[in-house]
Amino acid sequence: MATFVQKFGGTSVGDPQRIARCAARVKQRRDEGHSVVVVVSAMGHTTDELIELAGRVSEKPSRRELDMLMATGEQVSVALVAMALEKLGVPAISLTGGQAGILTDGAFGRARIIRVVGDRLEQELAAGRVPVVCGFQGLSLEGEINTLGRGGSDTTAVALAAALRVGEKGGCCEIFTDVDGVYTADPRLVPNASKLARISYEEMLELALLGAQVMHPRAVLFGERYGVPIHVRHSQRPDEGTMICRETPEMEDVMVVGAALKPDLGRVSLRRIPNNPGVQGMLFDAVAKAGIMVDDIMQTEFGEIASISFTVDHGDLADVKIAASQVLDRVGTGELAIEIGLAKISVVGTGMKSHSGVASRMFVALGAAGIPIHNITTSEIKISCILGKEHAQKALAIAHEVFGLDKIGASRTEQAAAAAR
Amino acid sequence: MATFVQKFGGTSVGDPQRIARCAARVKQRRDEGHSVVVVVSAMGHTTDELIELAGRVSEKPSRRELDMLMATGEQVSVALVAMALEKLGVPAISLTGGQAGILTDGAFGRARIIRVVGDRLEQELAAGRVPVVCGFQGLSLEGEINTLGRGGSDTTAVALAAALRVGEKGGCCEIFTDVDGVYTADPRLVPNASKLARISYEEMLELALLGAQVMHPRAVLFGERYGVPIHVRHSQRPDEGTMICRETPEMEDVMVVGAALKPDLGRVSLRRIPNNPGVQGMLFDAVAKAGIMVDDIMQTEFGEIASISFTVDHGDLADVKIAASQVLDRVGTGELAIEIGLAKISVVGTGMKSHSGVASRMFVALGAAGIPIHNITTSEIKISCILGKEHAQKALAIAHEVFGLDKIGASRTEQAAAAAR
Repeated sequence: MATFVQKFGGTSVGDPQRIARCAARVKQRRDEGHSVVVVVSAMGHTTDELIELAGRVSEKPSRRELDMLMATGEQVSVALVAMALEKLGVPAISLTGGQAGILTDGAFGRARIIRVVGDRLEQELAAGRVPVVCGFQGLSLEGEINTLGRGGSDTTAVALAAALRVGEKGGCCEIFTDVDGVYTADPRLVPNASKLARISYEEMLELALLGAQVMHPRAVLFGERYGVPIHVRHSQRPDEGTMICRETPEMEDVMVVGAALKPDLGRVSLRRIPNNPGVQGMLFDAVAKAGIMVDDIMQTEFGEIASISFTVDHGDLADVKIAASQVLDRVGTGELAIEIGLAKISVVGTGMKSHSGVASRMFVALGAAGIPIHNITTSEIKISCILGKEHAQKALAIAHEVFGLDKIGASRTEQAAAAAR
Repeated sequence: MATFVQKFGGTSVGDPQRIARCAARVKQRRDEGHSVVVVVSAMGHTTDELIELAGRVSEKPSRRELDMLMATGEQVSVALVAMALEKLGVPAISLTGGQAGILTDGAFGRARIIRVVGDRLEQELAAGRVPVVCGFQGLSLEGEINTLGRGGSDTTAVALAAALRVGEKGGCCEIFTDVDGVYTADPRLVPNASKLARISYEEMLELALLGAQVMHPRAVLFGERYGVPIHVRHSQRPDEGTMICRETPEMEDVMVVGAALKPDLGRVSLRRIPNNPGVQGMLFDAVAKAGIMVDDIMQTEFGEIASISFTVDHGDLADVKIAASQVLDRVGTGELAIEIGLAKISVVGTGMKSHSGVASRMFVALGAAGIPIHNITTSEIKISCILGKEHAQKALAIAHEVFGLDKIGASRTEQAAAAAR
């Protein structure tokens, strides 16, 4: 008998019928002889409606009061899911984040989980009940209700799975969502993208940071730290999804597992600036203070002068231009160039660590198709190319093709089958 | 500087505009130099909507899960009221029942408050903040969310006022509602009814039990036990309402303070039954087990035989008939009579204790109007007459008239002014 943490998102609990389907899913696991802890998000558009309501009361509500308000969304969901389970004859008990022992750091609106005191959960499981826990929230040491910010419910699920050591007992954390699993590329852009049976935390993290919205990077990081196997699967279909797990040696057999596209980027370049220590700090401090997320940074130097380029979302360009100009004024020399209409193609894979020639294969393929590459950035398991937006979708298809990603899903499926044997 | 507990009902916080008006009301007290604790109910129809939602998930949700669900209604309200206060520049902090230190007995759906640990409230008040507390709920010693059942928010307000000893410091518990205060009779039935400036707990309790919906009897009882002055007043008007307080000697100068009408009663009579001990117990046990609330009970005896009559709501007659018939079968003798189309007129007043002739004055007046009285019941401060429904409204007007209730409001107002001097 294993323990599973099952997390259902807002769409999955959007109305009484969907709630009934979630309850049936929980019952199924129980009927297999397993223990289940359920984590749920607020129903459908509840969170948006509460934010709108708050906006009608105050233009600038405090984070604390927003958290008090938002936390009710999940509380409604857990009560309803527990009722639906009891209706199916499954003993259940709803718990707020605080009741479930989720201790947070007190940062309203963006709290971190500092500890999960699993006593109550263990107690309810021992009594044969299904604890149904509010995602997205916890209680600070001062007894205040905190919400976790974006990706919070996934993080709650992974944290509870870590506290209950579900991985050690043959269970896992199941994230039920509205997609089948993790694909080698966005199937809307690459029709022959294939579903991965397994992916490593590191790979998932890179893909999530590149915009794959299957799971929030925060929850993946949490899973990696505590070694929680995470199964991402469709809430309305029985098929296996994608298992996110620790890297295994055979995973390195596959060089690339996914290709991603970030559209609508702009590039900001500060050219011919003095190659002094401190210039970078001054620049990115100014950009951060303007509230802008920087994508990739590239720097080149030529003796005493240097050139720094970085990419940002197209929509942030106007603000960046102001911040960068002010820095140039302070530096006293150099010129500012802004390019628009760019995109970024990336390929990700643990196998890159042990295979050489991955980058060159990509560059050669793009070159053969006549697509110019403006910038290249790499990490241990990722290669990104900045190119013209007009070439982006074609370049994604080429990258997907050159690394045989349409067949990689199957290959990882064989690995998964082998791992299960 | 006094402390006031201000309670706003569901209608008063029904939308952002009304919430803003409540906040202005709180600010006004603060501007006078007082401390304020706010208690609020769920917005408008929220509670009904949540019950409806639960009904769509399960026909028979558990009381525990219903409490988990219902408690969110007040949590939404407190967050919004705190936001509205902060917008007006009044430092505020919303608190769940549990955070405010309201400990309950664990009975889901109908919990009693066993203690209020006022530390957090004192602390927030000392810091110059307005605690905005969820009405209708508390936390059990096991950490479970309990709701208090009907009249719960009024009870919360009175309990917090008791814990903070607001009465000893010149403050009181203000119940803001959609009526002006307590009237000598329902103004919809008796147009010249007058508003009472003061009423004793005992009188208020009798009137509440007779159907005056201004305040729930439970909250009045709580106020009486801890001597909390309760000011019932209109949420949208500045006028003073009615102060519910301990009886003072001069209150007895007024014989009757209110007249009430309970319409649509039926009378059940068991006639010619053996005058044995135990028959009454058997009868009312059967009625209680059928879930029926008995209004008044009258018994007469003639040597070895007796007759028991009691009144119930018209709608309960069918069920009562079945229960009473079964009792008669077990007793083996006697006959059952059911009368419909009855009503009850009552007059209430602390002054009855020290004035004789109150009852006779009422009977004489009703007799002079040709209204037959079917039954009479009395308590220390109440006289009730059962009569034909067709005479009810006229009888109410006569009772109101004969005790000069249209002028009593003014008299109690003078008393209030005298008490304030």
